[in-house]
Amino acid sequence: MPKKFGFLHFNLKDMPKLSKKAQAMPASPIRKLMPYADKAREEGKNILHLNIGQPDIKTPEVVLERMKNIKRDVIEYSNSEGYLPYRKKLAKYYQAHGIPVMAEDIMITTGGSEALTFSMMTCFDVGDEIIIPEPYYANYSGFSVMAGVEVVPITSSIDDGFALPAAERFEALITPKTKGILICNPGNPTGYLYTQAEMKAIAVLVKKHDLFLIADEVYREFCYDGAEPFSAFNLEGIEENVILVDSVSKRYSMCGARIGAMITKNRDVQAMAMKFAQARLSPPTFGQIAAEAALETPQSYFDAVTKEYTERRDFLVDGLNKIPGVRCPKPKGAFYCVIELPIDDSDKFCQWLLESFELDGETVMLAPATGFYITKGKGKKEVRAAYVLKKDKLARALNIIEKALQEYPGTEIAEENVLTSRS
Amino acid sequence: MPKKFGFLHFNLKDMPKLSKKAQAMPASPIRKLMPYADKAREEGKNILHLNIGQPDIKTPEVVLERMKNIKRDVIEYSNSEGYLPYRKKLAKYYQAHGIPVMAEDIMITTGGSEALTFSMMTCFDVGDEIIIPEPYYANYSGFSVMAGVEVVPITSSIDDGFALPAAERFEALITPKTKGILICNPGNPTGYLYTQAEMKAIAVLVKKHDLFLIADEVYREFCYDGAEPFSAFNLEGIEENVILVDSVSKRYSMCGARIGAMITKNRDVQAMAMKFAQARLSPPTFGQIAAEAALETPQSYFDAVTKEYTERRDFLVDGLNKIPGVRCPKPKGAFYCVIELPIDDSDKFCQWLLESFELDGETVMLAPATGFYITKGKGKKEVRAAYVLKKDKLARALNIIEKALQEYPGTEIAEENVLTSRS
Repeated sequence: MPKKFGFLHFNLKDMPKLSKKAQAMPASPIRKLMPYADKAREEGKNILHLNIGQPDIKTPEVVLERMKNIKRDVIEYSNSEGYLPYRKKLAKYYQAHGIPVMAEDIMITTGGSEALTFSMMTCFDVGDEIIIPEPYYANYSGFSVMAGVEVVPITSSIDDGFALPAAERFEALITPKTKGILICNPGNPTGYLYTQAEMKAIAVLVKKHDLFLIADEVYREFCYDGAEPFSAFNLEGIEENVILVDSVSKRYSMCGARIGAMITKNRDVQAMAMKFAQARLSPPTFGQIAAEAALETPQSYFDAVTKEYTERRDFLVDGLNKIPGVRCPKPKGAFYCVIELPIDDSDKFCQWLLESFELDGETVMLAPATGFYITKGKGKKEVRAAYVLKKDKLARALNIIEKALQEYPGTEIAEENVLTSRS
Repeated sequence: MPKKFGFLHFNLKDMPKLSKKAQAMPASPIRKLMPYADKAREEGKNILHLNIGQPDIKTPEVVLERMKNIKRDVIEYSNSEGYLPYRKKLAKYYQAHGIPVMAEDIMITTGGSEALTFSMMTCFDVGDEIIIPEPYYANYSGFSVMAGVEVVPITSSIDDGFALPAAERFEALITPKTKGILICNPGNPTGYLYTQAEMKAIAVLVKKHDLFLIADEVYREFCYDGAEPFSAFNLEGIEENVILVDSVSKRYSMCGARIGAMITKNRDVQAMAMKFAQARLSPPTFGQIAAEAALETPQSYFDAVTKEYTERRDFLVDGLNKIPGVRCPKPKGAFYCVIELPIDDSDKFCQWLLESFELDGETVMLAPATGFYITKGKGKKEVRAAYVLKKDKLARALNIIEKALQEYPGTEIAEENVLTSRS
């Protein structure tokens, strides 16, 4: 970073040091390539953004209409736990999905992010350990650093589509410091949807070792091929151990509303989390108005979105698997996939795509999977793509990835693969 | 907290323990009396809320109009640091107030609360010390607990209207662990406005001991009797040490927008804080639209608000000082005052007002000042009042306080005071 010198007589050694926490915070793997993207754009390249989970789907009309008709003179704080009428309606949403949530179990938060921060701050002390299946949503690392908790990763594999690792592998990682397990279901970045059997295996571990289970279920609405998500809130016998993290961001394509929820039957957890909630006063009022309106979104909206994402997923994943040396399991949920590429280093490849490659004036931005693993060296041959673009753009992206792999100096395709795919 | 028993075979000793951090989080002194208030309301009592800083002033028309005309199909995330057009306009607001802020110095946050959390997380390690003049905004304690930083209080006194304690008293508290000073100017809960000389005394301390200065200036717009606030951003020679915390909540009476700012010239602090900002993705989009519109609020709005608050302050403070045994310095800023009462215990008194007192079916809710001091035992004879109600209500509140002091069993008025006031 540049320092000002001169008239201020500014002297580096006189400056107070920044915190270890700040140093330890990971940079966002999704956003860290931004400077290269900015440069590519300046050079006139068009960039197809497969790197971020910002959907192009329209926010429901009922939300946009509601915002045009706010009848308030003062945009006041809400209660720290969120508006009661909204929480009551939200409880009904869960009940309609077979999830036994009551209004009093719900604390409205500023996005799912805050629900995760509050959960970690409430449950974990500095030095406590939390087990998270990797690859995982990169910001879990950031929230863990903020709470001072150590992430113990358990690596899942592309070979079985990123299924839940076996219970014995979890047990091998459990120490007296282990206080919780964090899962994302359906998963970001893998798109994997845990089966009922896998969820029950987690419940057994949680019960046996007296752990908290934080379940991030923000992609609940995005399940394909008729698959049904099984909520952690439906696990019997661990009702007081579960904290459900949710968000309206993706469900209604209104990421900017910043409305999420921390949901638990555990009144001690809730009472403690309320102190963190009170310190920040209230979740956003405008966002809560929008989120309450969103609960009236018709089923036809979700049907159309599911159809659209299913088509995009099939188009992208099938297309990827046809490219020599590329492998991508077809996810059952969310709108991401992890792609194995025949490359030396996903960070270098993603940067190279922006800096050194173009096809008809266009390139693709992908997220290197290294940022979704905490185990060093993992994810070097993998990238995450979000299928949040329309099919014509996905077609161009597929074409760019195929041509780029032919040109990229670090491509390592085994000869047999090339022959197979050409045959 | 009630526990469920029975079919769950729920057993307390099997539950994982909550964090020390959660236990250490203070309950909000402003909100902790809420259950008593709820009960009083159920019994049919009307409550005059002098306990919270939720103004009854209207949000500017330009904001409410703008929200009715949002032309967006997708309510997307903004950049993690906030929308650039908003930051550019916001910089001009500061420049118009003689404060040298550039757009690139500004990170938009979810309320002033998040700016404080990011500042503390970025600057302070677990065990570091921060000096805060007390009484102070109670949530500073909560943010400190979250960052693991120790608050070292320096007590200011009602005798000189809560002026800045002498530099020697600060120096006596500075240890190798001291990393910063946090001030609120104009002050909540005292309403005290630091003079230019006081601000310069702080700058000398900051420079000499290589500290960060976090300056919470969210009440900038609320200064009375022609007084001008002196911003920490105008202190020469410590430009890289200062972090300005700001918020639109009170300025435009739109607390629910949840839009604040963390402002600094220190690019290292900013780069590190950006990692925390990226982890939570973006500040609220609706709130940023509202806050950008708010910058077009005409001066006449502020003139009217200042006039209204000046009248309320004079009415309340003058009235209070006429009650036997009551003392209240007249504040130069914000919309709070700390009141010394002739009582045994402000927590008991405030609870008693809700539980056991009424005048014509009404009572008053005040915030016990104990929650604004971290030094044990301080504030037992003080309460905070926010003059956020219209004058007719303040008149009734004054009457209630006077009568309540006559009836409250813990009132301790010296005989000479009673005689003087009755003479």
